[in-house]
Amino acid sequence: MISLTPELDKQSGIPLYQQLFAYLKGQIELGMLRENDRLPSIRQLSVYLSVSKNTVETAYQQLLAEGYIQSRLRSGLYVMPLDQLEGVKKSKPARPEVKSGAVRLPPNAINFEYGDVELEHFPVRLWKKCLVDALEECTTEVYGYGDRQGHKGLRSEIARYLYQSRGVVCASDQIFLSAGTQTMVSLLAQLLPLPEAIAMEEPGYNGVRTVLMNMGRRIIPMPLEHDGISVEHLRESAASMVYVTPSHQFPLGMIMPVHNRIKLLQWAYERDGYIIEDDFDSELRYQGQPIPALKALDTGDKVIYLGTFSKSFLPGIRLSYMVMPERAAQEFRSKLQAYSQSVSPLIQAAMYRFMKEGYFESHIRKMKKLYQTRHRMLLRTIQEQLGSHVGIIGERSGMHLLLDVYGRSGDELVEKALEYGVITYTPRKHWLHPEACPPSYIMLGFGGLNEQKIREGIIGLRKAWFP
Amino acid sequence: MISLTPELDKQSGIPLYQQLFAYLKGQIELGMLRENDRLPSIRQLSVYLSVSKNTVETAYQQLLAEGYIQSRLRSGLYVMPLDQLEGVKKSKPARPEVKSGAVRLPPNAINFEYGDVELEHFPVRLWKKCLVDALEECTTEVYGYGDRQGHKGLRSEIARYLYQSRGVVCASDQIFLSAGTQTMVSLLAQLLPLPEAIAMEEPGYNGVRTVLMNMGRRIIPMPLEHDGISVEHLRESAASMVYVTPSHQFPLGMIMPVHNRIKLLQWAYERDGYIIEDDFDSELRYQGQPIPALKALDTGDKVIYLGTFSKSFLPGIRLSYMVMPERAAQEFRSKLQAYSQSVSPLIQAAMYRFMKEGYFESHIRKMKKLYQTRHRMLLRTIQEQLGSHVGIIGERSGMHLLLDVYGRSGDELVEKALEYGVITYTPRKHWLHPEACPPSYIMLGFGGLNEQKIREGIIGLRKAWFP
Ligand SMILES: Cc1ncc(COP(=O)(O)O)c(C=O)c1O
Ligand SMILES: Cc1ncc(COP(=O)(O)O)c(C=O)c1O
Repeated sequence: MISLTPELDKQSGIPLYQQLFAYLKGQIELGMLRENDRLPSIRQLSVYLSVSKNTVETAYQQLLAEGYIQSRLRSGLYVMPLDQLEGVKKSKPARPEVKSGAVRLPPNAINFEYGDVELEHFPVRLWKKCLVDALEECTTEVYGYGDRQGHKGLRSEIARYLYQSRGVVCASDQIFLSAGTQTMVSLLAQLLPLPEAIAMEEPGYNGVRTVLMNMGRRIIPMPLEHDGISVEHLRESAASMVYVTPSHQFPLGMIMPVHNRIKLLQWAYERDGYIIEDDFDSELRYQGQPIPALKALDTGDKVIYLGTFSKSFLPGIRLSYMVMPERAAQEFRSKLQAYSQSVSPLIQAAMYRFMKEGYFESHIRKMKKLYQTRHRMLLRTIQEQLGSHVGIIGERSGMHLLLDVYGRSGDELVEKALEYGVITYTPRKHWLHPEACPPSYIMLGFGGLNEQKIREGIIGLRKAWFP
Repeated sequence: MISLTPELDKQSGIPLYQQLFAYLKGQIELGMLRENDRLPSIRQLSVYLSVSKNTVETAYQQLLAEGYIQSRLRSGLYVMPLDQLEGVKKSKPARPEVKSGAVRLPPNAINFEYGDVELEHFPVRLWKKCLVDALEECTTEVYGYGDRQGHKGLRSEIARYLYQSRGVVCASDQIFLSAGTQTMVSLLAQLLPLPEAIAMEEPGYNGVRTVLMNMGRRIIPMPLEHDGISVEHLRESAASMVYVTPSHQFPLGMIMPVHNRIKLLQWAYERDGYIIEDDFDSELRYQGQPIPALKALDTGDKVIYLGTFSKSFLPGIRLSYMVMPERAAQEFRSKLQAYSQSVSPLIQAAMYRFMKEGYFESHIRKMKKLYQTRHRMLLRTIQEQLGSHVGIIGERSGMHLLLDVYGRSGDELVEKALEYGVITYTPRKHWLHPEACPPSYIMLGFGGLNEQKIREGIIGLRKAWFP
């Protein structure tokens, strides 16, 4: 075994896996670790360095994702051949495909990362047309700071879309745009008198939780029932604000039925509180009747509605939106006077055209079908390959699901899968207390994988987990 | 005089000018105020409604900027002809040009708004090429969330640019990208343990001050000397962090000499504090030798450097950057793991190409000359037209300057100018205590006006202010 002597400093505040990753990357770049050197197994290295297996695993995962190492079937992880490494260092892509230089390998790593979306069928030509048209307008509106609330025409299109697809009735004046959901939540916390403590589903979306906590708010974790947040527990808490994902609980995937939505709204009216509804991927439903958004049922004007184009269109436009309650919109707008808009007006103007021309609607229709087919393939292959070894959680909508690999540990599963060139994740970070995440859970995002890759990936998991 | 009966509610928390603006806009849209109706003068309406002249003026300014009313020379403000109003209501541009329908008028309002940039000479073709090339790459890197720290190639280009133009030596790993300076400052406040109180130049940039205050920080205002922030006062304060604009004080325009920069750095080293250096428009210097950025002189790794493409390129790409001190970069990066990038990867990839191809450098060179010519025209016309009536403040760099219109009041000046179709601003909001802003100050941004407009605008001001 090659000698590795990283100095890991537990006091430094820098996560150990980051330190280990940086060390290993450095060793590879310096040539101390050479082409085709085999890395120690996760277990070996974790024992040797007295760090958790999770630390080693995460560092390895990052090396793999950045193309410094590759996995060889049933054999382990190896430093990439130098010529391919040079490519990595020169172009340094965020997430290059791991090319195999050796025999008996899956040709590419299959990455079940949540957040990736379908690109093979993306309407590049139409989107380009909209971008170029917006660009050629060459006005202050498109080239300057733009409307601080967001492109007026785009806000009108979003209002129309929300009415048609989600039953949400609102004026374009109530809509605010921002560069992603986190930027929006940070703006909310800056401009509204958010309470000191905010209730959230447990588990719940880590992206929003982190922002709220970093803005000095305390999170009150709310247990989930089989059909969503426990309104009873919410009642018993002192919270006057709650963040929820009723149409597709993130990450567990349940869909809140109408009667519970009404109970939740009732809570807000009685408490004189507010509900932040994150309707991030409501477009993608595979079973059952569509249920109107909380916001559509909200007769008391107590729901702050969040939406995003990251799932229905592209994460890469970094464009999300909020519908403010009518009574709060004007004040929010006037507080916004000191802020500039965070989304490029060019992107906004292009998206405006894309929606106005009807391209967005037909894109959504197409994507829905496409993801549904993939989703079916995923479920079928899981049943066929993993069968009674696993339970499936949250399979009714969205672009991910969870596996419960009975009796196994996530860290071991992720590591084994890695050795077969399949990248999987544990959903641990979405628990306020990550220890509470059942260790047997694995999260599979399938948005960026076509049917063949999905099939290959699941077959890889079967080989890795149940040899 | 037409009858106006707005119900203005001083308790509502909504600024009165907003309420008044909304009322007047509604009256026009409903047809209660008709084409060619003359609005009461600012003084008349402020007496009639018992509100400040400032309130009425701001509401009128907004109506003018949105194209609901127009100014007629020496005569007052009138509701726009209906056909033109329809255009406004249909297309609803953020800041339409006010077309005149009547005689003896300046053909367009001339807007001295700070923040507008030159578009006539913008290299649309090259920028389009870069955008389309990036788009056609069609990779996860460009269409997905992208590197959370920012496009790696673009960060390298920025590092190179900062070295060449500002003497700043840094690795691309120390650079972080975000959708505008405010988004960056909000991120800083979320991820760094910023002190509870932060020192700032008084007056200073309102955009950053507002974010810091909304993030719960207290501002310690620092007086300015003729050449920048008073380091003596900083020493006497308890502050351990200061936000400064040394290369072009905003809004007063002084440039901090090297010996004071060194004193300021010394303060940071002794105090073990941090300096946030906002180098927002250092490209545009019209007099004197370039002075290296604080960051370039910072041997103690205590400067957090902020830059933006909003002045040197386009506000509409919403792209700004930060250079983290070496010792803090890794920790910042690891805390960023829970965040996604706020700038569209498409925009980043396009900007990467634009810089790599050398287009950015030649663009800057061209713009520098162009703004210099405009700046000269502005100074010459001010001297010629306003002569000894005014003092000029901050004329050595940038895209704005201040006028001190001796013995006059800004509100009156803004109002008078409006009647001549010239939109000017008071810089009041950049004072922590706006009352402390000398009432005779007027802020003129000239970035978006060509030489002819600048000349017309200043001639308009002479007619308005010194008839
Ligand atoms: C619950 C939830 N909300 C929102 C988002 C989307 O965030 P953004 O708009 O920043 O892409 C996601 C994406 O992962 C999510 O899971
Ligand atoms: C002092 C200062 N910093 C930064 C900016 C630019 O901010 P942004 O990057 O959001 O365009 C400005 C623009 O007005 C400014 O005056």
